[in-house]
Amino acid sequence: MQVDLGALTAVLDGRWAELRGQLRHRMSATKPAHSTGLDTETHRSQVFDQLRELVDSGHPRLGFDPEYGGLGDIGGSVVSFEMLGYGDLSLMVKAGVQWGLFGGAVQMLGTERHHEKYLRDIMSLDLPGCFAMTETGHGSDVQHLRTTATYTDGSFVINTPDDDARKDYIGNAARDGRAAVVFAQLITGGRQYGVHAFMVPIRDESGRPMPGVRIEDCGRKAGLNGVDNGRLWFTDVTVPRAALLNRYGDVAEDGTYTSPIESDSRRFFTMLGTLVRGRVSVAGSAGSATQRALTLAVRRAETRRQFQHPSGGTEVVLLDYLAHQRKLLPALATTYALHFAQEELVEMLHEVQTTAQPDERAQRLLESRAAGIKAVATWHATASIQTAREACGGFGYLAESLLPDLKADTDVFTTFEGDNTVLLQLVAKGLLTDYRDNFADLSPLATARLVAEQLLDTVWERLPARKIVSPEPRDRKWHLDLFEDREQHVLAGLARRLRAAASDPFGTFNSAQDHVLRAGRAHIDRLVLNAFVAAIEGCTDVAAAELLNRVCDLYVLANVEADRAWFLEHGRLTPAMAKKVVAEVNALCRELRPHARPLVDAFAIPEQYLSG
Amino acid sequence: MQVDLGALTAVLDGRWAELRGQLRHRMSATKPAHSTGLDTETHRSQVFDQLRELVDSGHPRLGFDPEYGGLGDIGGSVVSFEMLGYGDLSLMVKAGVQWGLFGGAVQMLGTERHHEKYLRDIMSLDLPGCFAMTETGHGSDVQHLRTTATYTDGSFVINTPDDDARKDYIGNAARDGRAAVVFAQLITGGRQYGVHAFMVPIRDESGRPMPGVRIEDCGRKAGLNGVDNGRLWFTDVTVPRAALLNRYGDVAEDGTYTSPIESDSRRFFTMLGTLVRGRVSVAGSAGSATQRALTLAVRRAETRRQFQHPSGGTEVVLLDYLAHQRKLLPALATTYALHFAQEELVEMLHEVQTTAQPDERAQRLLESRAAGIKAVATWHATASIQTAREACGGFGYLAESLLPDLKADTDVFTTFEGDNTVLLQLVAKGLLTDYRDNFADLSPLATARLVAEQLLDTVWERLPARKIVSPEPRDRKWHLDLFEDREQHVLAGLARRLRAAASDPFGTFNSAQDHVLRAGRAHIDRLVLNAFVAAIEGCTDVAAAELLNRVCDLYVLANVEADRAWFLEHGRLTPAMAKKVVAEVNALCRELRPHARPLVDAFAIPEQYLSG
Repeated sequence: MQVDLGALTAVLDGRWAELRGQLRHRMSATKPAHSTGLDTETHRSQVFDQLRELVDSGHPRLGFDPEYGGLGDIGGSVVSFEMLGYGDLSLMVKAGVQWGLFGGAVQMLGTERHHEKYLRDIMSLDLPGCFAMTETGHGSDVQHLRTTATYTDGSFVINTPDDDARKDYIGNAARDGRAAVVFAQLITGGRQYGVHAFMVPIRDESGRPMPGVRIEDCGRKAGLNGVDNGRLWFTDVTVPRAALLNRYGDVAEDGTYTSPIESDSRRFFTMLGTLVRGRVSVAGSAGSATQRALTLAVRRAETRRQFQHPSGGTEVVLLDYLAHQRKLLPALATTYALHFAQEELVEMLHEVQTTAQPDERAQRLLESRAAGIKAVATWHATASIQTAREACGGFGYLAESLLPDLKADTDVFTTFEGDNTVLLQLVAKGLLTDYRDNFADLSPLATARLVAEQLLDTVWERLPARKIVSPEPRDRKWHLDLFEDREQHVLAGLARRLRAAASDPFGTFNSAQDHVLRAGRAHIDRLVLNAFVAAIEGCTDVAAAELLNRVCDLYVLANVEADRAWFLEHGRLTPAMAKKVVAEVNALCRELRPHARPLVDAFAIPEQYLSG
Repeated sequence: MQVDLGALTAVLDGRWAELRGQLRHRMSATKPAHSTGLDTETHRSQVFDQLRELVDSGHPRLGFDPEYGGLGDIGGSVVSFEMLGYGDLSLMVKAGVQWGLFGGAVQMLGTERHHEKYLRDIMSLDLPGCFAMTETGHGSDVQHLRTTATYTDGSFVINTPDDDARKDYIGNAARDGRAAVVFAQLITGGRQYGVHAFMVPIRDESGRPMPGVRIEDCGRKAGLNGVDNGRLWFTDVTVPRAALLNRYGDVAEDGTYTSPIESDSRRFFTMLGTLVRGRVSVAGSAGSATQRALTLAVRRAETRRQFQHPSGGTEVVLLDYLAHQRKLLPALATTYALHFAQEELVEMLHEVQTTAQPDERAQRLLESRAAGIKAVATWHATASIQTAREACGGFGYLAESLLPDLKADTDVFTTFEGDNTVLLQLVAKGLLTDYRDNFADLSPLATARLVAEQLLDTVWERLPARKIVSPEPRDRKWHLDLFEDREQHVLAGLARRLRAAASDPFGTFNSAQDHVLRAGRAHIDRLVLNAFVAAIEGCTDVAAAELLNRVCDLYVLANVEADRAWFLEHGRLTPAMAKKVVAEVNALCRELRPHARPLVDAFAIPEQYLSG
């Protein structure tokens, strides 16, 4: 099976292939700046310079409104962040803060007056800014932030009530930011209307903090030390009424509050929903970092030898060992799968955010998918980059192998832009809502049938000698059924468990929390598989499709293997079939081993980013 | 259940409690030096100063022969490395290189002339040295190192044949080392006798490399940047005949080679076996680092709140969430289990190395156990410290949380002092040898019976409707049987698979490599459980023993849960029992949650090492 690399890359590059090509070209033409061992200030200053160079490339304009000089290509803007994920991740995050979070908030939550006033300067970096949402005491539960913005006499007065409500971990705050979009509880006429966003200057032209603004540096971090994270406190900081980003809620001169969305809570989550692009970008760059780590590890495993072959002669190449294949190849297969899921997610985002009248349900699905893919992709990145480091032994511990920075920089991905555990719960809660809605729609007869089916299912699981059809382990239809059935079953079981919630909502939910997380995960796994299958279906190169099918088999079977206890416990696999799944993962590792190098080369990571 | 902290600490402190107390006292009396964000040279110089202070404490003398000023307390010397594991791990590793690896090699592989000449200066740090074994091309397969030491005219000439044979990742080499114990193929009279160790000066008094010695800095690493790792090349470096550390092999003036051990290979592995202390020390300090990370994470999880309780009022403490308990408590239980296994390992080491006539079998068991515990403990460290970081969210990413350094510094533990994957195979190979020996000893009748039993076992596994006795999930007898049965069964299965090896030794072994690793793992898990049980049996405080029994239950059931696919596939658990195991892990998390703080406080880590 000889596969054309270009054909593989074309499948991977997908809809934004042209843009990816341009970015790759640009990256290939410049030598990546070295960042290892730099002191904090030097690294920050280097990243800021690189940020300026990005402005010249024009790519930061991708995600903005053409009316103000943007290019209106939402999907392309995410793809450009993904491509930055091949380089120094401090630059990716810094760009993400400036144009994704800060610029994105102005665009999505502001109105014409803000766009007109700020967007050009944001794109050109003349106005470096922060996205000041997280507080020390509220990282996940941002609905209950405690910074206040009180309307009085034509102005908002911003205050940090105590240290627990200081803005924390804020990118661009410690060194470069001149303004911040500050999220605070809006208070007017003595009533609180929930969290809103305000444009607040934090430094003057000379770089000194504005009156009433206190700024502190978060100091050294595990990684991403080219990003200047900081803390912000506000004491009676007064901004004009127009500083309120007023797309979803406004305050009139006389202090009257108005909003197209009545519920404070719903309004806030609608606002949050428009900011989904950040999560999508993090998931994408986690993918790029994973691709880079696996490329480095596979290249080394293909050349490094250790221990003599028992029949004498040369020493054995690392990647010929099953244990080494098992470290790298299932991780590589999953990286492919997640890449296609990411591509689908970016398209979804692009459609939702470029449609004039966005469909509320589509928006909700997008948010759920972005949350779930972000969680799964970033956990996968952390685990795979760790594995790649270990697979490279002592060399992988040296900065020159590039793996230490990759590991340190990506580590925070699992908890920033939403803590993964919280995000998976968000996915599960969405599924439960849908499930209950469907359930509520049923006629009494249909309900009775559903209950009976569930009962049968339970009885069936407990039958010891039942027959399970023994499938071909590479039957895609079986894979799809297996993933869908798992999702349905976990969700139905969870819904059953939570029915008792009325009497002790917290206790019931809490004791089912492992099932909640599993439900979110099973759902995302199915979406990822569907995306992989769709990508293969769209591939016209026969040899490439054939290879991708094997990679997809490995993705599925490694996933089933890792979760086979569940399949066994729920009567979806017999012990014999489960053992067969394990054996088949080994067989696929063997089969794919000769293709390991082409599979990583197809990512087409610019060569400069693959040597120290 | 009110548990006395002192009683818990006493159980943990074990045989070397007094020494631990002294070290704790010393550590409590000094403020730990800050190392985050230091440039390489500053950090290295700080660690070297700390090393000098250690000399004054007298603890480096613990492991050495009293005849030369040592204290002759082998176990104590490992315990002192463990205690260093609570602080800057660069210091622990640097001390380990100087006194454990370098000094240990001189003591264990040298004879009186070397002891007399070097040991005092090694203890006093007047002779800083390196342990120069690893080469770029040979990290795991050190039997095939390619540096040569050729005997000619009363001297050995040391040579590095090519770049692949340079000494690499050598601690103390880049900055401080004045001498190195260099491992090289000994050649005399035209014949090669395998790898031997030579004392080679690498720098003169003024710190310049000796003639023929080339030294290069390995540069920045993911962590441990206070340790000066470097590379060494030798070109016709001449050392006197007496530079050979000649306990296991010697060369006479006329070039005649003699050794008490005839086989080159057996001799080399005997030499390696005496150096086991390094692995034991790494396992121990991995344990200390894990304890520290979990202490930090549990403390935070006990105070930090997130999301309101559905019944209103205050927000929920993180550790009250099942998902958070599941992150930290099984990891904590495993940390306890591994601590007791480590304590047993240290005692074993102490007995073997302080006995005048060491028993060969005891030595072999020690090596196997050291390899296995090192692998399991360091993987556990990497996973738990990662979990602790994630459990602390964005804060865990800041240097001030102390977790970034813990994570970065311990990461290499899984691959240095023996790559974990290679080490677990070593364990399995030892088990297979024992298994074959036992099998060979059997009479034909007994052999037939064994084969019949295995066959019955297989048939039994395949019987769909067989009865498995449903045990009490907290029945310790059941736990012990389960772990032992798993070990036996995996090993028997592996032996069966490998029987075909004659025709294609590499292919057969390689395709069973996942079983090989599983066999090593199952064996170590049983030893760890046994050690935990023995420690509880030795605990006279009723409440402490009661609590430790719950912790042991959680260790066992979390281990079974993680591996329950295997138990299901092999008919050791029914699906209903497997689900019960999962539910019981949840129940134990709930029960142990109020004890989380006492359980980490019992580690009695000096308070200075728990705040940034």
